[in-house]
Amino acid sequence: MAAETSAPDPILDPAPASPPPPPEVDVPALTALLDGRYADVRDLVRRNLATYASVLEEAETLSLDDYRDRVRDLVVEMAASGQTGMGFPEEYGGGGDIGASVAAFETLAYGDLSVLVKVGVQFGLFGGAILQLGTRRHHDAYLHDLVTGRLMGSFAMTETGHGSNVQALGTAATYDVATGEFVITTPDDAARKDYIGNAARHAQVAVVFAQLVTADGSHGVHAFVVPIRDEGLAPMPGVRMEDDGLKLGLNGVDNGRLWFDGVRVPREALLDRFASVAEDGTYASAIDNPNRRFFTMLGTLVQGRVCVGGAGINAAKVAVAIAVKYAVRRRQFETGQEGDAAEEQLLLDYGMHQRRLFPLLARTYALHFAQEVVALQLHEVFSGVADDEKTRRELESRAAGTKALGTWHATRTIQECREACGGAGYLAVNRFAALKADTDVFTTFEGDNHVLLQLVAKGLLTDYASDFGDLDQLGMVRFVASMAVETVVERTSAHKLLERIKDVLPGGERWDDEAGILETDYHLAMLRFREEHMLAGVARRLKRGIDGGRAPGEVFSRVQDHVIAAARAHVERLVLEAFVTKVNSIDDSDNRRALALLCDLHALSVIEADRAWFMEHGRLTVARSKAISREVNRLCRRVRPIAVDLVDAFAIPPEMLRSPALVG
Amino acid sequence: MAAETSAPDPILDPAPASPPPPPEVDVPALTALLDGRYADVRDLVRRNLATYASVLEEAETLSLDDYRDRVRDLVVEMAASGQTGMGFPEEYGGGGDIGASVAAFETLAYGDLSVLVKVGVQFGLFGGAILQLGTRRHHDAYLHDLVTGRLMGSFAMTETGHGSNVQALGTAATYDVATGEFVITTPDDAARKDYIGNAARHAQVAVVFAQLVTADGSHGVHAFVVPIRDEGLAPMPGVRMEDDGLKLGLNGVDNGRLWFDGVRVPREALLDRFASVAEDGTYASAIDNPNRRFFTMLGTLVQGRVCVGGAGINAAKVAVAIAVKYAVRRRQFETGQEGDAAEEQLLLDYGMHQRRLFPLLARTYALHFAQEVVALQLHEVFSGVADDEKTRRELESRAAGTKALGTWHATRTIQECREACGGAGYLAVNRFAALKADTDVFTTFEGDNHVLLQLVAKGLLTDYASDFGDLDQLGMVRFVASMAVETVVERTSAHKLLERIKDVLPGGERWDDEAGILETDYHLAMLRFREEHMLAGVARRLKRGIDGGRAPGEVFSRVQDHVIAAARAHVERLVLEAFVTKVNSIDDSDNRRALALLCDLHALSVIEADRAWFMEHGRLTVARSKAISREVNRLCRRVRPIAVDLVDAFAIPPEMLRSPALVG
Repeated sequence: MAAETSAPDPILDPAPASPPPPPEVDVPALTALLDGRYADVRDLVRRNLATYASVLEEAETLSLDDYRDRVRDLVVEMAASGQTGMGFPEEYGGGGDIGASVAAFETLAYGDLSVLVKVGVQFGLFGGAILQLGTRRHHDAYLHDLVTGRLMGSFAMTETGHGSNVQALGTAATYDVATGEFVITTPDDAARKDYIGNAARHAQVAVVFAQLVTADGSHGVHAFVVPIRDEGLAPMPGVRMEDDGLKLGLNGVDNGRLWFDGVRVPREALLDRFASVAEDGTYASAIDNPNRRFFTMLGTLVQGRVCVGGAGINAAKVAVAIAVKYAVRRRQFETGQEGDAAEEQLLLDYGMHQRRLFPLLARTYALHFAQEVVALQLHEVFSGVADDEKTRRELESRAAGTKALGTWHATRTIQECREACGGAGYLAVNRFAALKADTDVFTTFEGDNHVLLQLVAKGLLTDYASDFGDLDQLGMVRFVASMAVETVVERTSAHKLLERIKDVLPGGERWDDEAGILETDYHLAMLRFREEHMLAGVARRLKRGIDGGRAPGEVFSRVQDHVIAAARAHVERLVLEAFVTKVNSIDDSDNRRALALLCDLHALSVIEADRAWFMEHGRLTVARSKAISREVNRLCRRVRPIAVDLVDAFAIPPEMLRSPALVG
Repeated sequence: MAAETSAPDPILDPAPASPPPPPEVDVPALTALLDGRYADVRDLVRRNLATYASVLEEAETLSLDDYRDRVRDLVVEMAASGQTGMGFPEEYGGGGDIGASVAAFETLAYGDLSVLVKVGVQFGLFGGAILQLGTRRHHDAYLHDLVTGRLMGSFAMTETGHGSNVQALGTAATYDVATGEFVITTPDDAARKDYIGNAARHAQVAVVFAQLVTADGSHGVHAFVVPIRDEGLAPMPGVRMEDDGLKLGLNGVDNGRLWFDGVRVPREALLDRFASVAEDGTYASAIDNPNRRFFTMLGTLVQGRVCVGGAGINAAKVAVAIAVKYAVRRRQFETGQEGDAAEEQLLLDYGMHQRRLFPLLARTYALHFAQEVVALQLHEVFSGVADDEKTRRELESRAAGTKALGTWHATRTIQECREACGGAGYLAVNRFAALKADTDVFTTFEGDNHVLLQLVAKGLLTDYASDFGDLDQLGMVRFVASMAVETVVERTSAHKLLERIKDVLPGGERWDDEAGILETDYHLAMLRFREEHMLAGVARRLKRGIDGGRAPGEVFSRVQDHVIAAARAHVERLVLEAFVTKVNSIDDSDNRRALALLCDLHALSVIEADRAWFMEHGRLTVARSKAISREVNRLCRRVRPIAVDLVDAFAIPPEMLRSPALVG
């Protein structure tokens, strides 16, 4: 056995200085802080959720078709309250406020998630495509009716054979100059549209993504408005459809498949904001590079990713709230056995239980504030406050990264909270069944999380420069390989921040002290160092791979886990910065102290989770690494007295928590 | 930016020695190896699964009640094949072979898991309690009918207010000397029986766990046979029942709640193998200590845990098989974009995808062989081959630990494989919906995994000594605190093994070399060191806490995560040893080479996952730690060519893979 030190055990021995008394959380004020500028919008949605709370139970009792119809009806009713149309121009019955529409959508995630996703399909995907890719003609024709839910539509992008690789879609829209029509064709089953929301039952119209072909050849993927059902919901000629059937979750949304057998639509069906075809078949676009044109079109749809990320984070709030409330009601085990205490101990007083729940609670807050940042950026870009190409690319990158981390967090948190509620968590009445099943697909829709992180990495490695924004993955590999590693790294934002932080903390050695473990600058410096170091490593390995004569595809495959880790490190840094910035913006108060505590717990949990990497890269000594784990335990004990207040501040309508046996 | 070394990058640069060609896996021989001594039993179950494959679809299309009845009918039909009764004595229509019954149960996990769990409830829990806790009288009365499924029964242990803490159950069985009957009473709603399988619809009889009370007072928890429904399935007088309703999964099993309002059963209803009550109310037991008596009774039911662990591992096989087969059909992204290759690359050729799936595949094999060991031990103990109290305690500990790791592995693997199949993985037809939902509760049933690992730790810290086996958690804390740390540690099996391994590898320093990274002795020594070190740390901290005057409950709460980590380290060591032992038992062949490769991947993945700990405790240098991560990548690439063979060797009936779109 190795020799043992007799160092004090800060877990069992008293801490050097006794911790401050727990802050007295002002719950309504904390809710107001979380709700931010859209408190009224969020309250409207909360009221609607409470009004329609019966859908949570109906999701279990209705037949599949009845549940789908019920969800459709609810969506139309909610639309009448103005809740779902906030992002559309006022002249078409909308609210004219992008930020409000994101806030409304996020809050909807407290309730039945089929309702949420149906709203997303109808107003976000279908409505968003008409709004962003179409022009006045399309707006006038469709927006009024779709904002009310009178016209239901689909967003028909994904094909069975092409998930994340949208540029390779097989559906073709061939211009027939003789009739002035596009002919939409599904060449084979791999090109059938699949998993398309609203397609199995309710959609009358679909925005179909297809390769635009004229006499000159193919011009890449464009979007077309295609009627798929008549007023009586019978399929239009040439359109075949199939129900995707039961899914793991979200069964209130009717996903389906679509085939187009030479379906003819007028020339005006092309959503022509970025490209048009003249009557004589001449193709024209202000964006010459087809790759960049494609990414510009996709970029206008970034709101979907922002919304899904926010929904994941809010679904996680529901799970954490139930688990924390359960753990202060449930007693368990042992202390009563030999007269130590009259009663079994509360679950939440167990160190292990705190370890399971509180870092997730802290991360939920961190992601909430990170989401607030990206939602604001979205609002500003799409409201024209700040809209240049580089800002757009940064927004797209941040949206992709926040969506990935937010939805993974939802999956992990809901699972952990379900287990922390034991057998009771398994009953459908206690919400976890629906939460788990319905959120599961969040990690893969609106872009698979791994693919999204690759997008983030590409942005970082090319500095979001418009010259390189149109590179595909392998183009990116070649581009990075062509530059000096230093050039790649010096252009990244992490590098610039790291230089600044080095002035604050000269030399790295102070990081290895016991001191300063709760200093925010220390936490930030650690995450910035990691990000920059990983990016440099990726750049170097890509370069070496290409220089060594390997094919870009093989190089990319071998460096892929490193690429994704670097992107993740980048997003983790953004998340922590958002949390820190928020804490610093609050006036001195107990709420500020409560959030500062959570922020420390989040930061140290993130560092602890990757402490092997920090040791491997000379940024943590063994002693410091152990000290961080002890500090996480200590912070968990300090969070314990305020944990219930912290979940109450989410202001989840009690009807949404349901779980009578768990939360009382 | 930190200075960069120019060390070779073994990911991109050629490896020093080119790897050997991939082994030619002999799939049928590998299947035979996995099936082991019960190949015939497993084949019988496979044939039954294929025969009844329609239930996978019926699970989605039938109403709740019809699905439950369909599952009941299937269970009865399977019983007629002899498949479900293999563990019962031949004189009652059983097969008289415990090991065969475990093999049959595990294999059933390839199919619909409601069928599996219904079998577990009827034959494992209900039947097992009659067999193990009852005597001849009970066997004669019930076994014949329950083995055929003619008499359906429940195992009524868990109460709403008492999950893992069975000793604190509230249900009472009070002996009425005047009538010679026990009066079964549910004092309050916290004491209602809850989540009881078969209780909502099919059970006629329940084995009810209750505090046995005579004129002398309470004698602790005992089991009683209580009729709950008549032949027409109407509730018996005094028995109230309620349906638990829809659950997250396993909806083919009718879980329910039971209340007993002074239900009278004859004195003979007590399952009296370990204790009896005479007509005059005199209580007698060969085991004086009530705590030990209780644990002895529970110990006879250990087969349930062994079975659940095995089921989890086999459910994971289904998920891995689908994900691997999908990834060699699905092409994705990019290489076609600029003429590098005619086609998109196969998913399984991506480094990240290999990283996601192959360590899980390797761990599935490792756990399979660990499960084989514990199933054999169970067989030997319960067949009387080796049955002393310490062996029983070791078996219980190993069963608890394997169940915890096996079921956590199932949850994690199914989730990762679901995500690795993208949107398609979300469709119910592709199996993941059912796999996810149905296995989710495995982590909490037959004992919450965290509680089970605490049981493992207790066994280690008290060396399974019969004198201490009856200690509760806080008694364990006091006991450990009363001993010298060295005494605690020297008695553990890890310590003894470590001494032996130190002879093989004198000094620790060789472990820090680049050399020997693929040596099995090195892997084992690492895991043994970790286990012993963690156990010593726990013992020391418990001692210091008590010596410092803290209450045992508080000490335990603060050291709890360390206790659980130590137990996990112990089980990880057992799992690796099982895998290594199996590999060493095979004659030199390509199959041996394939398994050795997987075993290395498993071992290094386990070390890599906890490399921070190894660095913190002086067992890994930074260079070595990085080398391990590189080696894991390299091993993944070597597994790639044989991955399909490795999942084919599980011999999952193709009907069970279903997933037409994923596996073709």
